Amino acid sequence: MSAARAVVLLSGGLDSTTLLAIARAEHRECFSLSLDYGQRHRAELEAARMISTRLGAAEHKELKLDFGQIGGSALTDPALEIPLERTPGIPVTYVPARNTVLLGLALAWAEVLQANEIYIGVNAIDYSGYPDCRPEFVAAFETVARLGTKAGVSKGSFQIRTPLIAWSKVEIILRGVALGIDYGMTVSCYQADADGRACGLCDACFFRREGFAAAGIVDPTRYQGVVANK
Amino acid sequence: MSAARAVVLLSGGLDSTTLLAIARAEHRECFSLSLDYGQRHRAELEAARMISTRLGAAEHKELKLDFGQIGGSALTDPALEIPLERTPGIPVTYVPARNTVLLGLALAWAEVLQANEIYIGVNAIDYSGYPDCRPEFVAAFETVARLGTKAGVSKGSFQIRTPLIAWSKVEIILRGVALGIDYGMTVSCYQADADGRACGLCDACFFRREGFAAAGIVDPTRYQGVVANK
Repeated sequence: MSAARAVVLLSGGLDSTTLLAIARAEHRECFSLSLDYGQRHRAELEAARMISTRLGAAEHKELKLDFGQIGGSALTDPALEIPLERTPGIPVTYVPARNTVLLGLALAWAEVLQANEIYIGVNAIDYSGYPDCRPEFVAAFETVARLGTKAGVSKGSFQIRTPLIAWSKVEIILRGVALGIDYGMTVSCYQADADGRACGLCDACFFRREGFAAAGIVDPTRYQGVVANK
Repeated sequence: MSAARAVVLLSGGLDSTTLLAIARAEHRECFSLSLDYGQRHRAELEAARMISTRLGAAEHKELKLDFGQIGGSALTDPALEIPLERTPGIPVTYVPARNTVLLGLALAWAEVLQANEIYIGVNAIDYSGYPDCRPEFVAAFETVARLGTKAGVSKGSFQIRTPLIAWSKVEIILRGVALGIDYGMTVSCYQADADGRACGLCDACFFRREGFAAAGIVDPTRYQGVVANK
């Protein structure tokens, strides 16, 4: 039984929700993990909890880590503004070493669960400015997981699954729709309101909007009043 | 200046205190990081803060992470007893994937500081049962750090320094004494009291006691009354 267990990193956004649906479709017993890292809003975390139940995860865990203390990201540092325009290079919404931290925490839980798989929704296309979204980074972490855990050592392997890594936003959305996901329950926006309604203006909203348009799918995102008709 | 910056993982125990003294002797501008992972006592964390100041770190940070939620270790799970005898294999005081998590958090701070070195006091001898204390694990994490951070990518390198990795407890103590450390301010015990006095009975106390005895150094540890004369 433990061979089919997997920890799934679930933010509550579009990508990680699709990821969880894929892991379930791949017959994994899923343990979804969200990180409360001092996001500006809790709507995403609440979405993650609901999505976990709806998609049939065995257990959901929310871990609190005060990432704001480390600083360096507009997502956790109130002194930095969320940009409303696309700019070249690594965006200020980048959370330092985020995927290393997320994978490390997932690995800790995987070890307790005797799972030797982690699913993470990294994507090398939309976020090509982030060094920790590349296949070579994922491969390096897989080695860390294999060498640094009891399960990895005894089984001689540990898999980091990244099914979305080479997909466009359109491909992700189409796969999710095929798996029956209601994307209305997901929250991608960096500055959603308390009800989980999106701003429609930030990077995350931009990519998501574009994705639905290009996929020819009606955008089910709930937008805040003022931008609803933009 | 940033080339000489290093994040130093500091628990407040004997090994990591020696580590910080070594990093300082190697002329690094040190940023010490402690993890409040739900230890049974705060004495170790308070020791870390004091040691950081005494040894001249540029800044000290204490990050809170509720590791108890993940479970699996006697150090964070009140349902598990701290063993008072040595047993073969991986001890129940092992915190799952601990060094991966610690290194991940240190990496996040290193990225904000534009440091590309982390010092960690892993030791492959005393703790040979822990898979994440081995040189091959450290090398694998170094690759993760190089590939997964802006600094690592732009500089093409990132160093994880482990000066203690092959040293016996005696060698660590002798080096620390040579560097002028007052080990009376360090706390190693898994169940120290509120004043930082050690139980004298747990694994950590055992190795420490043995170390001072073998080094021929008077043990400066402050023990709790009942075991002081054992």
